[in-house]
Amino acid sequence: MRIDILSAVPDLMQSPLNTSILKRGQDKGLVTIELHNIRDYAHDKHRIIDDRPFGGQPGMLLKAEPLFEAIETLNARYNYDTIIFTSPRGKIFDQRDANRLSLKENILFVAGHYKGIDQRVVDTFAKEEFSIGKFVLSGGELPALLLVDAIVRLIPGVLGDSESALNDSFMDGEAIEAPAYTRPADFRGMKIPEVLLSGNHGKIKEWQKEQSVIQTEIWKKNNNIF
Amino acid sequence: MRIDILSAVPDLMQSPLNTSILKRGQDKGLVTIELHNIRDYAHDKHRIIDDRPFGGQPGMLLKAEPLFEAIETLNARYNYDTIIFTSPRGKIFDQRDANRLSLKENILFVAGHYKGIDQRVVDTFAKEEFSIGKFVLSGGELPALLLVDAIVRLIPGVLGDSESALNDSFMDGEAIEAPAYTRPADFRGMKIPEVLLSGNHGKIKEWQKEQSVIQTEIWKKNNNIF
Repeated sequence: MRIDILSAVPDLMQSPLNTSILKRGQDKGLVTIELHNIRDYAHDKHRIIDDRPFGGQPGMLLKAEPLFEAIETLNARYNYDTIIFTSPRGKIFDQRDANRLSLKENILFVAGHYKGIDQRVVDTFAKEEFSIGKFVLSGGELPALLLVDAIVRLIPGVLGDSESALNDSFMDGEAIEAPAYTRPADFRGMKIPEVLLSGNHGKIKEWQKEQSVIQTEIWKKNNNIF
Repeated sequence: MRIDILSAVPDLMQSPLNTSILKRGQDKGLVTIELHNIRDYAHDKHRIIDDRPFGGQPGMLLKAEPLFEAIETLNARYNYDTIIFTSPRGKIFDQRDANRLSLKENILFVAGHYKGIDQRVVDTFAKEEFSIGKFVLSGGELPALLLVDAIVRLIPGVLGDSESALNDSFMDGEAIEAPAYTRPADFRGMKIPEVLLSGNHGKIKEWQKEQSVIQTEIWKKNNNIF
């Protein structure tokens, strides 16, 4: 898979892309991730990429010209399966989106910044717009990284066998995983549930399933999901 | 405000904390953000911080001892207003949480990694657990960064006047902002809505309000929110 990310502040994304799972996926040659600076496509002396919005509201918008040139240049080179904008207006990203997108060959992410992007850019190029929730951020870079992480970890070979994504929370509909414990079984008098020490795999699976149902119900109640 | 973040891979968080708004908040002395490595609290020869879970499911869990020592040490030093764990099991973070947390004096974030954290750590220390949505990630670091960004940008003085957070999407209930445009008004024949060029501020505000209602309805429909 190839992933390109276009941003006004690409350096913001360096360390998450060079650590842990995302680094491993790249080191193994399973995914290529490249950052692109919108400023490289601005040709005036000061390489200006933002301007005040028409209508007088405060804040700055990313201008149309540099983004048009950037996206057209990259798309001519890679012919993307999909172009994704991160935006508060988008569909709230979920695991089904991650599963579907993990099957793409190449994706371009465009991260908004400041107060957003000239709408003509979005209208022309966005195949999908994703939000990561009902809160406001300084830019679309961290949301883009979240999406990249959620997608890349699903590419076969990125996770080791022992990390198998199959029993993660949300892989199976909306089920939250059971609480989990590791050694020591007694830590300062806090003991793990006895069943986990029983060696009875059937009973353990049953307990985990019960706990998963309980945790999922609590989670749904906490989040007004019915 | 003071923010500490405890993680198994603190370096992952370096570049987002040292760029853009989060850097500016720190440079202005409005927020202190410090990263802490769980491994610094593991005292065996190999500084092991994870172990296999009881019950036989795949993956590794963060062990209780190093996390207990880390959280107790930091909390003795800073006496946190709240201790937040990022976890799929948490309440889904929203702007109300960001608003409330921006008034705290100090916050400790604990980022899960691998397949999670020994539940006794969570049961003992978590004042709040937050998720950022219904999808699976490699760790809680990116979600912690999102929360930090959403919170820090609300601290007075972090954003410049021209970026005022007051008209952001989600600040006012669930309203999505109107589409926005900047110069040129005609780009390759794509013209901005005429009202924005009218100079009539009352009409412009009315149009933006109408558009915000329309966009919010589309967004709600896309996300099954009624």
